[in-house]
Amino acid sequence: MSELRWHPFLREWVITATHRQDRTFFPPDDFCPLCPTRVGHLETEIPRPEYDIAVFENRFPSLTLPPATPAIDGTALMPVAPSSGICEVICYSADHHQTMATLPTSQIRKLCRVWQERYRDLSSRPGIEYVFIFENKGKEIGVTLTHPHGQIYAYSYVPRLIQRRIDAERAHWEAHDETLGEAWLRQELAQEIRVVCEKANWVSIVPFFARFPYEIHLVPKTNYANLNAMDEATLDGLAEGIKDVTSRLDRLFGFSMPYIMAMYQYGGESSRFSLEFYPPYRTKDRLKYLAGSEFACGAFIVDALPEETATQLRSL
Amino acid sequence: MSELRWHPFLREWVITATHRQDRTFFPPDDFCPLCPTRVGHLETEIPRPEYDIAVFENRFPSLTLPPATPAIDGTALMPVAPSSGICEVICYSADHHQTMATLPTSQIRKLCRVWQERYRDLSSRPGIEYVFIFENKGKEIGVTLTHPHGQIYAYSYVPRLIQRRIDAERAHWEAHDETLGEAWLRQELAQEIRVVCEKANWVSIVPFFARFPYEIHLVPKTNYANLNAMDEATLDGLAEGIKDVTSRLDRLFGFSMPYIMAMYQYGGESSRFSLEFYPPYRTKDRLKYLAGSEFACGAFIVDALPEETATQLRSL
Repeated sequence: MSELRWHPFLREWVITATHRQDRTFFPPDDFCPLCPTRVGHLETEIPRPEYDIAVFENRFPSLTLPPATPAIDGTALMPVAPSSGICEVICYSADHHQTMATLPTSQIRKLCRVWQERYRDLSSRPGIEYVFIFENKGKEIGVTLTHPHGQIYAYSYVPRLIQRRIDAERAHWEAHDETLGEAWLRQELAQEIRVVCEKANWVSIVPFFARFPYEIHLVPKTNYANLNAMDEATLDGLAEGIKDVTSRLDRLFGFSMPYIMAMYQYGGESSRFSLEFYPPYRTKDRLKYLAGSEFACGAFIVDALPEETATQLRSL
Repeated sequence: MSELRWHPFLREWVITATHRQDRTFFPPDDFCPLCPTRVGHLETEIPRPEYDIAVFENRFPSLTLPPATPAIDGTALMPVAPSSGICEVICYSADHHQTMATLPTSQIRKLCRVWQERYRDLSSRPGIEYVFIFENKGKEIGVTLTHPHGQIYAYSYVPRLIQRRIDAERAHWEAHDETLGEAWLRQELAQEIRVVCEKANWVSIVPFFARFPYEIHLVPKTNYANLNAMDEATLDGLAEGIKDVTSRLDRLFGFSMPYIMAMYQYGGESSRFSLEFYPPYRTKDRLKYLAGSEFACGAFIVDALPEETATQLRSL
């Protein structure tokens, strides 16, 4: 059972998906549903004895195609819509104990090709309005499976915060005839102080407006709208950048850093691809929480200077 | 050191406030800075041996008046502004071991008068654009002081999510000549199924569009824009409602329920006062996290039916 319910005060869809309460919750390593199926063992999500990178539909999807019929009627004030969409899982490796930071760069290169293929495929499907590639990592983010994996949500609508970004990017494009991402990157590169690492075709930055102390934005230097247009060298650079960013985050406090990894991109000329990492730690043993000001007002308070955290990350 | 930095992709201010890393973090009960100052002990935030309800400026404020001079220059793309505003702390009781749910209703009645007085005072100050009364409760929300207390942020600008609500409420008012809150409440009362508790002058509801399984909205039945206009009976009813809501939340799983309590109100004719509770638990031992879809896209996934959680809460 799943449906979209309209929030009339925030003007956004809420995905109400009740079957998900039963989803797998911290299974022991022997029963990981994302490992390959071993001979003589129960079948996992991947019915093969080995795999390199695996993509499949989420067994507990928030969005499906075709969607279920909503179980409740809406009103003009609070309409209901079918929860159309596609939720996929991508296992980065068959090795249960890897993370993005420990995977060989060669494996991340392959992953970038899989993302590109999934992005192309899903964004061409009828009824799909936004394809969001992301990774939730770590128990601090609420992740219940430790096997290295990410997710894709292909929404049948443009989610609220995505629309907000798109609107800002379009307005900038119309006023300045360049992408907002380009304008931002030029200023960051000129000011230098918040650059974490710069290589031939990519750069990682703690942005001037970071909402988390160790927030890092990873962008190709070329102005790509999305994964679709990227050439081989750019995809290889992206992989190298991901390895660099996640390794630095792990070295920062000496433990495997949890994060939300969010890939922002869409199809328009005003769009610029950005891969953003949001680690929840503000110090080695203190988490940043989204409480009253952040959650209820959308006013983030960040307890660190991006200029200082970038310097820290650069030195690692 | 504190300033506002503009986030050009989300078009919102980020409050960068670095001195706050040193704020008090889970002090032992004997050293609670919100307890009265005991004879022969170090002075707390309240230099008196006893108090009933105490209000004072936050010692680690994100916003101040007059504000500090920003330590960094902005650009046209990413401007910087002084972090003007007022951050207050309200101690609900001198008794360290109380919570909102265990306080006598008579004390919450007094608290409602204090809120009203603070709302009137702060919203009349020059340069204050939005007064937000809230409570973060519980370590799951990141609260580092257990003494029963709430906070007030008087912002020098209208935060992003507040502006979004105001825009939705104004649009509804202009189209229908009644507040959005009234329209919503009428439908909830007619459908009944999500009503948790209804009394003479207040009602509590798990809204149709809840983003958390046990989200509860508490509203007076009369259409008040804000605390300012409320009469004595309404303030008393509000106190009774708060006692009822927080007691139910504590009985739900048999422990003192953490929550974000957010008071939404502003001055216009389109505004309707609403006091909203967001508890982070989705079951007795599982938290709801704001991860990829929620944090990065603004697309909430809720793993429970409001119709069922309201029934549960109603029966308590």
